[in-house]
Amino acid sequence: MRSPQYQEEDRLRNGGFETPSPRPRIQAHYHSNVSEQKRRRFNILILIFRFASFCFSLAAAIFMFSTSSTSSTSSRGSPSWIDFEAFRFVAIVNAIVALYSLIEVGVSVWEISGGNTLFPEVLQLWFDFSHDQVFAYLLMSANSAGTELARSLNGMDTCTESNAFCTQAVISVALGFAGFLFLGLSSLLSGFRLVNFLINGSRFHF
Amino acid sequence: MRSPQYQEEDRLRNGGFETPSPRPRIQAHYHSNVSEQKRRRFNILILIFRFASFCFSLAAAIFMFSTSSTSSTSSRGSPSWIDFEAFRFVAIVNAIVALYSLIEVGVSVWEISGGNTLFPEVLQLWFDFSHDQVFAYLLMSANSAGTELARSLNGMDTCTESNAFCTQAVISVALGFAGFLFLGLSSLLSGFRLVNFLINGSRFHF
Repeated sequence: MRSPQYQEEDRLRNGGFETPSPRPRIQAHYHSNVSEQKRRRFNILILIFRFASFCFSLAAAIFMFSTSSTSSTSSRGSPSWIDFEAFRFVAIVNAIVALYSLIEVGVSVWEISGGNTLFPEVLQLWFDFSHDQVFAYLLMSANSAGTELARSLNGMDTCTESNAFCTQAVISVALGFAGFLFLGLSSLLSGFRLVNFLINGSRFHF
Repeated sequence: MRSPQYQEEDRLRNGGFETPSPRPRIQAHYHSNVSEQKRRRFNILILIFRFASFCFSLAAAIFMFSTSSTSSTSSRGSPSWIDFEAFRFVAIVNAIVALYSLIEVGVSVWEISGGNTLFPEVLQLWFDFSHDQVFAYLLMSANSAGTELARSLNGMDTCTESNAFCTQAVISVALGFAGFLFLGLSSLLSGFRLVNFLINGSRFHF
């Protein structure tokens, strides 16, 4: 900010006339447009990842849940996902992630079309990032436990007797890993968005 | 720090007079001091997390590796970590994370004391963050698989015959989860540091 003394000097240097109005700030306008466009592209990228994670998690959950129906039609006493804790873990975590991803897809679409976040922005960013992190680790944990169980079942009677059950469980776990991949990617992006907000958009400045 | 010889040369170059102290740029100096202090405190926090993660992972790896020695002293044919893939996974991933954390502790101490990173800064930040992420997910995966195996072994002959082996394996997995916790925290901090660098310290500007 220039002091009044300097402004007076400027005025005199201009022959006593008022300084003409400053050049329109095209530059600033251009920059704000560019950053708005970048933000939009970033949000669309997150939306794509979230949608992919929704699809894969939903497919994984459906595959796991459907093991109980195939087993009941074939014969009494054949295995179901509900008999194994690790498979229950896989089914439930995938279902939760699918639900969460669906909600986040909705929020993302709302934000991209309307331009407003559901919660206040800072809360929304923290909510997204923390849930992404927790669910990504949870999904990794469930899928690893499921893989280990499927591996140890592989040599046992359970799999030789009802092969379809084991195949379905393995496919479900594999789909869960694909869901994890996209959830992990959206967790990275939402983390970037959060830190960006913390640095540029609030008092917190590292 | 300049050596006394250089200081003497400076003095002579100034015609024997002491150099006049430059006009103090108090504002800028103050700001750079504050951010330098914050940066230092941040690095010390990461160092603490890395050291904790090193301790827990090392303990987990040692506990798992030592199952083979207890089994060989007790009786032939009793189980060892090497017989189970999930426990091998736990042992090896924990050993790798312990090694990585040790190296990172060294780099951190070097940076805090000397003020320089090992690699060029941008490379170092990307290296830290990517390895933190990968190893955190890997450790979560190994520990979950180990938990599942320990759970399924629990009702079987292996654990009723040699209880010490199962207890050691469970303790190892629990220590691995503690290691994961600190690795996850340092992954968050190194992610923050990376994004901060990308936004404030390079051409990339979101």
